[in-house]
Amino acid sequence: MKFAKIPMATINRLSIYMRTLQDLLEEDVDVISSERLAKQCGVNPAQIRKDLAYFGEFGVRGVGYRVSDLVNQIKEILGLQRPWNLAMIGLGNLGSALIRHANFVKHGYIFTAAFDVDPQKVGKRLPNGLIINHVDELEELIKEREVHIGLITTPASEAQSIANQLVLAGINGILNFAPVQIQVPDCCHVENVDFTIKLDSIAYHLSSGL
Amino acid sequence: MKFAKIPMATINRLSIYMRTLQDLLEEDVDVISSERLAKQCGVNPAQIRKDLAYFGEFGVRGVGYRVSDLVNQIKEILGLQRPWNLAMIGLGNLGSALIRHANFVKHGYIFTAAFDVDPQKVGKRLPNGLIINHVDELEELIKEREVHIGLITTPASEAQSIANQLVLAGINGILNFAPVQIQVPDCCHVENVDFTIKLDSIAYHLSSGL
Repeated sequence: MKFAKIPMATINRLSIYMRTLQDLLEEDVDVISSERLAKQCGVNPAQIRKDLAYFGEFGVRGVGYRVSDLVNQIKEILGLQRPWNLAMIGLGNLGSALIRHANFVKHGYIFTAAFDVDPQKVGKRLPNGLIINHVDELEELIKEREVHIGLITTPASEAQSIANQLVLAGINGILNFAPVQIQVPDCCHVENVDFTIKLDSIAYHLSSGL
Repeated sequence: MKFAKIPMATINRLSIYMRTLQDLLEEDVDVISSERLAKQCGVNPAQIRKDLAYFGEFGVRGVGYRVSDLVNQIKEILGLQRPWNLAMIGLGNLGSALIRHANFVKHGYIFTAAFDVDPQKVGKRLPNGLIINHVDELEELIKEREVHIGLITTPASEAQSIANQLVLAGINGILNFAPVQIQVPDCCHVENVDFTIKLDSIAYHLSSGL
């Protein structure tokens, strides 16, 4: 599905709405008002209505949203009706912790490949059953295992070279945990995770007394 | 320092500008044009000028920004002229990986306390020299070690209870890695880190062909 000019902040909030709605489904909630949904998501109700309005009409006036319908509709918007295959590159402390994290599978993200250069790690089996391969095999295995998104958890010095290899292997989506800006062609979408940027934002709030 | 109504996106971009400027400082770059800085940060030059304009006049027309001056000015805006003390609550795979991550110290964030409930972990010494304490000691040690910000890396089921204890201990800033929305009083600022939300954004781009 293609929609013009949707703000990225809207896309990120749709993910948050979906997670809250999925929790509500587990609690057997069938219908929720935009007011209650907004409160649980930490936004205002007008924001939810505005975000959803980009994609059509949702909910029933005076009643609210049918929880399971809205989950499915947001999944369709975000492209999450199908699983996405991930490769982890870098099995240091952070990569090893992340690949064990149950949250990925819960949201339909499946690790199908894992790479490192350390001879002590290559050949070892991870708790999810995957065997760590050498980065030399990256291009071949990315294609063979139909990887869609690469996660880079290497040292900063290696991140650009790995990104280049991922792009050569046909990867168009990268989640970069290395503390460095990586450059990729326009066909590839990169998201960066830098925990310290979130800390800067907290520091700003604390020091400005907000 | 207090500024009215600065968009959070601006604050986050200031962090990114600062990191790029710090890298330039290490490469002995003295002056940079807004065009070149923008390119390195992956934004457009007008955005940098607009973001900085909230806080005053920076740079010299026709010349650019003095790198070290702008680093110091952004640090002052964000409240980063001083170190901030952190406590990690939850020393599972993710917490253990994060507390070893050099990126925190590099940006002036110092772990001064670490907590868990697992008797196998309590009393153990971490690579940074800290000893893991039991969560029962949280309030006392948060005050004693002048912790400013708490990082929650517990299971989702424990996160709210830990957040409550942090608030009771006087903490006003929380970085939450647990996959759950935590509720805190207005005096406390929470930032959430959910890697799968970034993946949703990549999935959206890949499936909509952006």
